[in-house]
Amino acid sequence: MQLTPSGSLRVLLLNGPNLNLLGQREPDIYGTMTFEELNKRIRDYAKEIGIELKSLQSNHEGALIDAIHEAADWADAIVINPGAYTHYSYAIADALKAVRLPAIEVHLSNIHARDEFRRTSVVAPATVGQIAGFGAMSYLLALQAAKAIVQQGRE
Amino acid sequence: MQLTPSGSLRVLLLNGPNLNLLGQREPDIYGTMTFEELNKRIRDYAKEIGIELKSLQSNHEGALIDAIHEAADWADAIVINPGAYTHYSYAIADALKAVRLPAIEVHLSNIHARDEFRRTSVVAPATVGQIAGFGAMSYLLALQAAKAIVQQGRE
Amino acid sequence: MQLTPSGSLRVLLLNGPNLNLLGQREPDIYGTMTFEELNKRIRDYAKEIGIELKSLQSNHEGALIDAIHEAADWADAIVINPGAYTHYSYAIADALKAVRLPAIEVHLSNIHARDEFRRTSVVAPATVGQIAGFGAMSYLLALQAAKAIVQQGRE
Amino acid sequence: MQLTPSGSLRVLLLNGPNLNLLGQREPDIYGTMTFEELNKRIRDYAKEIGIELKSLQSNHEGALIDAIHEAADWADAIVINPGAYTHYSYAIADALKAVRLPAIEVHLSNIHARDEFRRTSVVAPATVGQIAGFGAMSYLLALQAAKAIVQQGRE
Amino acid sequence: MQLTPSGSLRVLLLNGPNLNLLGQREPDIYGTMTFEELNKRIRDYAKEIGIELKSLQSNHEGALIDAIHEAADWADAIVINPGAYTHYSYAIADALKAVRLPAIEVHLSNIHARDEFRRTSVVAPATVGQIAGFGAMSYLLALQAAKAIVQQGRE
Amino acid sequence: MQLTPSGSLRVLLLNGPNLNLLGQREPDIYGTMTFEELNKRIRDYAKEIGIELKSLQSNHEGALIDAIHEAADWADAIVINPGAYTHYSYAIADALKAVRLPAIEVHLSNIHARDEFRRTSVVAPATVGQIAGFGAMSYLLALQAAKAIVQQGRE
Amino acid sequence: MQLTPSGSLRVLLLNGPNLNLLGQREPDIYGTMTFEELNKRIRDYAKEIGIELKSLQSNHEGALIDAIHEAADWADAIVINPGAYTHYSYAIADALKAVRLPAIEVHLSNIHARDEFRRTSVVAPATVGQIAGFGAMSYLLALQAAKAIVQQGRE
Amino acid sequence: MQLTPSGSLRVLLLNGPNLNLLGQREPDIYGTMTFEELNKRIRDYAKEIGIELKSLQSNHEGALIDAIHEAADWADAIVINPGAYTHYSYAIADALKAVRLPAIEVHLSNIHARDEFRRTSVVAPATVGQIAGFGAMSYLLALQAAKAIVQQGRE
Amino acid sequence: MQLTPSGSLRVLLLNGPNLNLLGQREPDIYGTMTFEELNKRIRDYAKEIGIELKSLQSNHEGALIDAIHEAADWADAIVINPGAYTHYSYAIADALKAVRLPAIEVHLSNIHARDEFRRTSVVAPATVGQIAGFGAMSYLLALQAAKAIVQQGRE
Amino acid sequence: MQLTPSGSLRVLLLNGPNLNLLGQREPDIYGTMTFEELNKRIRDYAKEIGIELKSLQSNHEGALIDAIHEAADWADAIVINPGAYTHYSYAIADALKAVRLPAIEVHLSNIHARDEFRRTSVVAPATVGQIAGFGAMSYLLALQAAKAIVQQGRE
Amino acid sequence: MQLTPSGSLRVLLLNGPNLNLLGQREPDIYGTMTFEELNKRIRDYAKEIGIELKSLQSNHEGALIDAIHEAADWADAIVINPGAYTHYSYAIADALKAVRLPAIEVHLSNIHARDEFRRTSVVAPATVGQIAGFGAMSYLLALQAAKAIVQQGRE
Amino acid sequence: MQLTPSGSLRVLLLNGPNLNLLGQREPDIYGTMTFEELNKRIRDYAKEIGIELKSLQSNHEGALIDAIHEAADWADAIVINPGAYTHYSYAIADALKAVRLPAIEVHLSNIHARDEFRRTSVVAPATVGQIAGFGAMSYLLALQAAKAIVQQGRE
Repeated sequence: MQLTPSGSLRVLLLNGPNLNLLGQREPDIYGTMTFEELNKRIRDYAKEIGIELKSLQSNHEGALIDAIHEAADWADAIVINPGAYTHYSYAIADALKAVRLPAIEVHLSNIHARDEFRRTSVVAPATVGQIAGFGAMSYLLALQAAKAIVQQGRE
Repeated sequence: MQLTPSGSLRVLLLNGPNLNLLGQREPDIYGTMTFEELNKRIRDYAKEIGIELKSLQSNHEGALIDAIHEAADWADAIVINPGAYTHYSYAIADALKAVRLPAIEVHLSNIHARDEFRRTSVVAPATVGQIAGFGAMSYLLALQAAKAIVQQGRE
Repeated sequence: MQLTPSGSLRVLLLNGPNLNLLGQREPDIYGTMTFEELNKRIRDYAKEIGIELKSLQSNHEGALIDAIHEAADWADAIVINPGAYTHYSYAIADALKAVRLPAIEVHLSNIHARDEFRRTSVVAPATVGQIAGFGAMSYLLALQAAKAIVQQGRE
Repeated sequence: MQLTPSGSLRVLLLNGPNLNLLGQREPDIYGTMTFEELNKRIRDYAKEIGIELKSLQSNHEGALIDAIHEAADWADAIVINPGAYTHYSYAIADALKAVRLPAIEVHLSNIHARDEFRRTSVVAPATVGQIAGFGAMSYLLALQAAKAIVQQGRE
Repeated sequence: MQLTPSGSLRVLLLNGPNLNLLGQREPDIYGTMTFEELNKRIRDYAKEIGIELKSLQSNHEGALIDAIHEAADWADAIVINPGAYTHYSYAIADALKAVRLPAIEVHLSNIHARDEFRRTSVVAPATVGQIAGFGAMSYLLALQAAKAIVQQGRE
Repeated sequence: MQLTPSGSLRVLLLNGPNLNLLGQREPDIYGTMTFEELNKRIRDYAKEIGIELKSLQSNHEGALIDAIHEAADWADAIVINPGAYTHYSYAIADALKAVRLPAIEVHLSNIHARDEFRRTSVVAPATVGQIAGFGAMSYLLALQAAKAIVQQGRE
Repeated sequence: MQLTPSGSLRVLLLNGPNLNLLGQREPDIYGTMTFEELNKRIRDYAKEIGIELKSLQSNHEGALIDAIHEAADWADAIVINPGAYTHYSYAIADALKAVRLPAIEVHLSNIHARDEFRRTSVVAPATVGQIAGFGAMSYLLALQAAKAIVQQGRE
Repeated sequence: MQLTPSGSLRVLLLNGPNLNLLGQREPDIYGTMTFEELNKRIRDYAKEIGIELKSLQSNHEGALIDAIHEAADWADAIVINPGAYTHYSYAIADALKAVRLPAIEVHLSNIHARDEFRRTSVVAPATVGQIAGFGAMSYLLALQAAKAIVQQGRE
Repeated sequence: MQLTPSGSLRVLLLNGPNLNLLGQREPDIYGTMTFEELNKRIRDYAKEIGIELKSLQSNHEGALIDAIHEAADWADAIVINPGAYTHYSYAIADALKAVRLPAIEVHLSNIHARDEFRRTSVVAPATVGQIAGFGAMSYLLALQAAKAIVQQGRE
Repeated sequence: MQLTPSGSLRVLLLNGPNLNLLGQREPDIYGTMTFEELNKRIRDYAKEIGIELKSLQSNHEGALIDAIHEAADWADAIVINPGAYTHYSYAIADALKAVRLPAIEVHLSNIHARDEFRRTSVVAPATVGQIAGFGAMSYLLALQAAKAIVQQGRE
Repeated sequence: MQLTPSGSLRVLLLNGPNLNLLGQREPDIYGTMTFEELNKRIRDYAKEIGIELKSLQSNHEGALIDAIHEAADWADAIVINPGAYTHYSYAIADALKAVRLPAIEVHLSNIHARDEFRRTSVVAPATVGQIAGFGAMSYLLALQAAKAIVQQGRE
Repeated sequence: MQLTPSGSLRVLLLNGPNLNLLGQREPDIYGTMTFEELNKRIRDYAKEIGIELKSLQSNHEGALIDAIHEAADWADAIVINPGAYTHYSYAIADALKAVRLPAIEVHLSNIHARDEFRRTSVVAPATVGQIAGFGAMSYLLALQAAKAIVQQGRE
């Protein structure tokens, strides 16, 4: 996996509802790392592998959609953890399909091993792939994947 | 279908999430006409048949609900394309029922001939009727229908 | 919506089971206009916008299918209110797909706001679009739509 | 149950698909009495209790609907064994609702004790009541019921 | 339908929960006749056609089952309106099957035309047939049917 | 597979709705052979293996049932492609069961590999077997099977 | 499986609805042994392996629950055949959970090989285990199991 | 919420199966307060706010129905915790509807946050409202609600 | 229910979409009291029992989530009527779980007695309990419950 | 159906679990012919129509998949009776799709007329067609079909 | 339960996937006894009650089926714990039905009280009965049952 | 993501059915890279980041389970692409749970965006997390994740 950056690579990172409470929220499922710590770790890693990162957390479905639309003119890829919207926001799925950027779905926990309703992602059909269950590392792996996908597309 | 306007007729036109991307989004389904072009065509036609039009597009479910509430004091009818909210926003349906204005549901594509989840409209029970599948013309037909319904009510 | 006719335009109008009883049947849902009055209104409007109309009402599923087949050699479009067959006649749906004419599904009432079984149309996947809930006006809007679709195809 | 006839009482008796084969068809379920014998027994009993009877058996869903429509001008009540159409003909149900005559659903066998699909009657919501499981006697009981219902309505 | 009695004919009449409140309970569905009046009408009719009747109303599922068991030594047939137990008492169904007497299920209203849960009878597979929707007359018709079935078995 | 004919063998061939449009209808699924060509090929093959063939295509469910009934006095076996009726005509299934002739269900395409609703055949429980997916050859194989089944029954 | 009794062991045996009719009821499923014979066989075996037995059969759901409650002060374990209540009595399940005695569910026939509704036991989640399909022997095996479980708990 | 009593107010308090075991039964869900203590707390509070209380706990579905019937002549309102019958006793629901007294459904635990089957109340459609999840306080709140509803009705 | 306040008690009151239209919206279901009147009644009662109240109504799912997050630093409990979001907002449920404050779900009408979709609350598993069906009183009872729960936790 | 062989034609015949027990296994469903006899009959017929046959029966899902893979280099077509794997082996279906040889699904009995679970074939979407219900003849018909399909492909 | 052995009695004991890991695997559900210890305990008990035992554990579905086939010539009965295959191996069920030996299904834990998917046994319809929830004792009880069933068959 | 290896790290790589055909099988979904090339790329990358790799591909469910069992004594983690077994092999899931090694589920394609049946993984509840949709890169990301998880566990 040769990851030598060729030119600028821009990724939009989106975090959906309640992710800002990380560290306070059900720590047995989501761990004790705070959202600030998570973001720092992601920013550092993005820098390390040559990714320019814009990041937004919002509890508003509409704000996430607006951000996806705006990414169309700037980003090369989207990394998104849609939080609980994963399970019912057909509107976010439509937004991802509409902007036609490669999108990667990320989850801190293994949603496929939890409550019944958490096993279905209506967002998935609008993404390249999904990485779930590795805590903060899910995001770092997603950044790598995003980089490789964009570079592959450029070659 | 005699459409001689009697006094001012006011219609609120609402477009839900991702409709602003029209022309860019899945053109094989939604066509290549842009959202600006669509709006112009609708405005021209509204003028032609004597309808005063207010129009809002929003990706925010709450903003659409707010607009429906405000319409109660101004509009005679509502024409709404709820986009993906069609399939899960019981809140928009409740809003339409609450303001007690005649509402017409519009879709660019024939939602009854697409993915399983797109065949169910939770908004429909709060509307007079539905027009789906005729692209931009769906809106023009809806304006005619709105006009006829309001005039019928006034007689 | 410029509707200047260019040459002859032929539409087959099909009405399915029990529509002949219009005016007698559940008037709180279907209104008090009789089937004769409805037909006259449709014929007049068709004439007005330059459409040559053939019309059939039948309670027989097979007779509706036969008529669809025969339309292949004559009609430019089909406007169909399949009545209760809407909900289970895969055979009518197959017939519409087979003749490859643009078809428009029409309903007097808003089927999406009624009994559970009336919300599903097995015919819809074989049509261009659907207009439901506007009483007699549903048909007039459908004729306009049919005209526009055929003209668009001709250009 | 006073059954003294007061003036003429007219009942339309409808038998749906395959009932003409009675006696040949799965005799362990439907018995060995032929359709002719059944009809004779019903006619005799109708005469005995002062009912003027018109009777039709058809394998055509549309023919049954046509007959229901025509009954509107002549009959006081309808007794119908819809055969297999019981389970999917929303069109027959709509016809019965449309003519607004009291209708009684009859079955030779106890459909509620047979295959899963035979336990649901889509016709039932359009009828006064149902008599099932008593072979030929189901019809005789239905005629009595029809008579009583009509007389009750006349008083 | 020759109903000349040959020797004694004994029928157990069972009424399930809440039927004792007849006349007070939802009169738009169940009518204004009281339970006493209903019983008198049934007793008179039974006498008239030569049936010896024992009758029990109970709100206790177990009491109904006990009565079915005791009927095994006395009755020729059972006429039962299981009330709400119709829809979930597999125990009553098993009891009817166990005593091997012909049983007839009776309902005042047409249960097949009401709430979804009322359309399923778990008791039906243990009965000869069902009569539903004719108010008090449902019982009288059931007594006739019981008589005919027992006589047929005796011949 | 010894197929030496012993005496006359009569087969009724039934084709359901829309099969008459073969060649015009969705050729990517059903091929370009016309219905006339298909019939000729079947007739020739029947002759070749000593089968006397009667054939009917109808879009009317009732007409197919009538034909099945009439076959009882003439045919040794039935080969039927019920078209879309495959998926909901319990009436055709009942007819096949009633006449007690061996019946073979035939489909041009592999219905088990298509839309969900096409995977269920309500007719199948009334047939000996099913041959699906081999285009025109499905019919020829069915004729062979019919012949062998009848001869086996005669021995 | 060392079964040397150490001190008194008390078991409550409960039989639900219709089990009193054993031997009369559907003998092809439940065998010809009467309920008296079954009880004798169980009592003898209990004595043989040193179990003090109290036994109740009731058709009343409430009576079974009452007995479970009373067992809390006396019994070491419960052996229960809930009959048809197996499939819907959440109340019996709650009773078993409430008294916190080890309970063993017993069935004469293999309920998992019968009608769909008989495959689900709502009582099972409140028991240690289930023994089904061995006729009278099911009870004897259950007594052994009860004994071993109680002794295991005492060690 | 002015609760100044005007004249006598009578409430029937019903507790369904297993509630008598309160304190012993799954204390992590239902708490350690015994049924006696609960009853005392309710009686004291009823007295305090001027309610005359009759109270019954029974494990017998039929006994609860009998008590509801008897309440018709005495009580102004019913407060009921149907225990496990909540989830399947259509008979209790019918009883509540039949007596036409305002009824309030009470649960110690939040049934909507527990096992799937506990989330459905078939009794709810027969009640004014539901209070669930507040332990003993659920009953006290229900008494207040009952009082207010009756007074409102009297004004 | 001793309600003597000990120190300050803070409650966040949240009202979801369309509740601002109270009094105008479907008055047969929700009553004629306006949202202003409701709020006044709640504020007065809160004051009376020593509760400091903050209150927010929003049609925006995200705004409700934001408010829940902010409550973490200020409130002792949350009283929430999620309106139509009750039935699909897993995001609100996650927010309530994340802040770990006791939450009480409130509804004006008895949602368990209405449309099928209104019987399911996805928010319920994140709350202590639910009070539904008592109109404005639902809120007052919830405030009492909130007070008791917080005091219990403090002791 | 011209079946003159042109060059070598190779078919792999696969039989899944339990088919080796043919003749011993449920003879009322599968007949009394042994597996040896079946194989001989198939081999003879293959020879007769110029097909080179390789044959494998295995109870191991993996062995069937291995054989399908190996067929890629040798066979022109596959005839497969997957036995019970028909209903759940997505792995066999994937294997058939992967090797891209025409495959024909065969069943001795008419699986569409048996237990519910036997009506679904997860293997079918990977095959050309299906022949079911004709006993040994199902295989012979499949060989003919295989031959015709391969020759058609070669022309 | 007279268990005096009369002549040789042979039982095949089959253990399905993962049972070899007993003692290591989820000990809170399956206990700490190892698979070797379990086997020794079963062998000792078999010897004690005069049963000749052959035993196989395999993770291969096919190997279990092969063993069932081979048992046909040697064993008098089969005791099988199909492990996870319980829930989807229709092939094992068919194998058991094919060899026509009495088979007893055994489970260490009470599968009816665990995950939803573990409550369904597709193997059960092919067995005499099921013993679940008694740990190692489940096997010993099964051996007793097997012995009694075979002896009963011999008498 | 510090990935400095500390001592040996051993990973078992498992590939399920049909993965050996990579490159030949549906290349539009799975790409044109062969299984050999994929393996080489994985081996090289494992070496590069200090992982000792054992690898097995098998079409046999049992062989995969055996390999999981054997890994218990050697491996630190498992990376598994269960192929089609993903969707029904509860036995593989049980094996992964039994050996208690961290397991990572890998898929070449985004299974959540494909056929309905491919969206459910019964294996997922036995794994730490899932990476799907990135082709060969899915495996490389999984190796990184495995390494980080094991090192985290060691610290």
